[in-house]
Amino acid sequence: MTENPLEPRMAYALTLGAVSFLLAVIWGRPLINFLRRNGIGKQIRIEQPGSHQIKTGTPTMGGILFVVPVLLVTGVLNIINLAMEAVGLGMEAIGQSTLFLFFCLGTHALLGAVDDWQGIKGLRGKGQGMSARMKSGFQLLFATVIALVLYFGPPQWDYVGVPGFPDFFRIGPLIIPVTIFLLVWMSNAVNLTDGLDSLAGSTSTIAFACYGMIAYLQNQVYLAAFCFTLVGALMGFLWYNAYPAQLIMGDLGSLALGATLALVAIMTGQWLLLPVIGLVFAAETLSVMLQVSYFKLTRRLYGEGRRIFKMAPLHHHFELLGWSEMQVKERFWLLSVLAGMLGVALALI
Amino acid sequence: MTENPLEPRMAYALTLGAVSFLLAVIWGRPLINFLRRNGIGKQIRIEQPGSHQIKTGTPTMGGILFVVPVLLVTGVLNIINLAMEAVGLGMEAIGQSTLFLFFCLGTHALLGAVDDWQGIKGLRGKGQGMSARMKSGFQLLFATVIALVLYFGPPQWDYVGVPGFPDFFRIGPLIIPVTIFLLVWMSNAVNLTDGLDSLAGSTSTIAFACYGMIAYLQNQVYLAAFCFTLVGALMGFLWYNAYPAQLIMGDLGSLALGATLALVAIMTGQWLLLPVIGLVFAAETLSVMLQVSYFKLTRRLYGEGRRIFKMAPLHHHFELLGWSEMQVKERFWLLSVLAGMLGVALALI
Repeated sequence: MTENPLEPRMAYALTLGAVSFLLAVIWGRPLINFLRRNGIGKQIRIEQPGSHQIKTGTPTMGGILFVVPVLLVTGVLNIINLAMEAVGLGMEAIGQSTLFLFFCLGTHALLGAVDDWQGIKGLRGKGQGMSARMKSGFQLLFATVIALVLYFGPPQWDYVGVPGFPDFFRIGPLIIPVTIFLLVWMSNAVNLTDGLDSLAGSTSTIAFACYGMIAYLQNQVYLAAFCFTLVGALMGFLWYNAYPAQLIMGDLGSLALGATLALVAIMTGQWLLLPVIGLVFAAETLSVMLQVSYFKLTRRLYGEGRRIFKMAPLHHHFELLGWSEMQVKERFWLLSVLAGMLGVALALI
Repeated sequence: MTENPLEPRMAYALTLGAVSFLLAVIWGRPLINFLRRNGIGKQIRIEQPGSHQIKTGTPTMGGILFVVPVLLVTGVLNIINLAMEAVGLGMEAIGQSTLFLFFCLGTHALLGAVDDWQGIKGLRGKGQGMSARMKSGFQLLFATVIALVLYFGPPQWDYVGVPGFPDFFRIGPLIIPVTIFLLVWMSNAVNLTDGLDSLAGSTSTIAFACYGMIAYLQNQVYLAAFCFTLVGALMGFLWYNAYPAQLIMGDLGSLALGATLALVAIMTGQWLLLPVIGLVFAAETLSVMLQVSYFKLTRRLYGEGRRIFKMAPLHHHFELLGWSEMQVKERFWLLSVLAGMLGVALALI
């Protein structure tokens, strides 16, 4: 081993991550001041454990902190590339994939922003956002548009990787309902997970880093670069989100992250691994589904509803078991890293 | 992109990480109970900020939690490999590199253990470990042995990678003082950093993951596997080390981690990047050196000593500036990730 192997593609992706981190950290301070000055604070719904009450007033809509740098970096790179293509110097088509992610991130951030805004202004009662029906309607709409564009291409995209099989399988139009399901599921899942300082932020960071690595190993350089741009920006967000949080990502952040994570997973073809790489998100949704179903079932059977978890989503359950908020957060984070390592390993076999 | 590239080597490294994490988490609980029952608790020296007093009594020597699984996994793999070689099925020589790391990790853990033990038993006064002179003597001894074996090989090892140059340079016997310096420096640096819950643990995890990735990209599979084994075991340690910490790594952990990190860096040839990938460690040592030198200088010049930082090492400075312990820890951690990304990128160009 005397030659030092060149890997400019990885260096490119990591450099973008560093740039977006710096962008996020630098504009974070004025952003927090702006949000605070304009009273864009979180209203806590009363059913949460007591210690969360103190967070009322922490600036929300913080997702804008990482969404903007990512849109900026991705947008600028695309414009540069278009300009270079115009003079015949363009690189392989990057527009397709990253513009697609750009659209997904942007629309869901917008949807979340409207939801957050209605919550802050109390248009529908204290702490309440958009009506659940309207929110779901928009999520379905965006997911459907993305699914259709994905399938009807170009290039037509309907791959699925199965651990243990070296080649991808094509599943034809089945990819459409799969895409819709995954986008809606993940955007809601990250939204549910966003209940403790840094929890959704750190677990998303891990998940994007893992898919970024998978994309890199598949030679999908631009997809990898997008993932690491998001990782960098999320780290910038975490800088201000560390306990005690100076801002909270809000639905703006969580919807955008969830949908984009699902789309990234689909674009690597390794979306079957989403419940592994997004372990915490999957577990949080599952805990709510189990809790609600079991409660309804036992109410019908025994007249009174029973619970499986002390409280759903899952992170509240562990808090009520006596873990400190830090322990819940750090352990969920460790499990995410571990699950992410397992996921990347599964994608490789 | 229809083929799913096979990367069994990466899958191998990540699987080892997962195994050592599970080993560490599983035996962590009985270990903590054992340490607690036997009164192996930390004695806080009085010059630390007030809030640290409450940690007196937290089990120390927790480094054993990650050192044992790593030695176990590495040892077992080497034995299997020797057995396979005996029947002619051996893989490329893994013994050399990982046994070397095995030795480095083991000896420094032992040295730290003696230091911790003397501290607990108060052989030399409350909270005092081994005499500084004896500790440094052993550090120098171990580092020298390692440096000599490294240089006189086989294979002779005297490489250095410089960012921007694709080929490694050979520096001949100069590698001997470099190795001694880096090992002693890093073991002391991680030791200094180990002042806040999870700080040394999490920053080491990042550093080993980065060097693991560099080793992997250099096709040094066994070195990468060793790094990820350590990453997994460290994550198991962090599980119990999350605030409020249930155990502390002690000198046993910090000396072993520091020396091993330096050795890993040397074995990738990318040891010039150690102050980047180990940014926090470098900054912590630098802060102490600056503080002490400035104090001595100003005392000689003005009759009274002045300080640059409110308190050294650096993490206390930020605590006294008003950052919460969590914020110091999470932000140092974020900077480590960022510096690590930069370091990997620099290793690739």
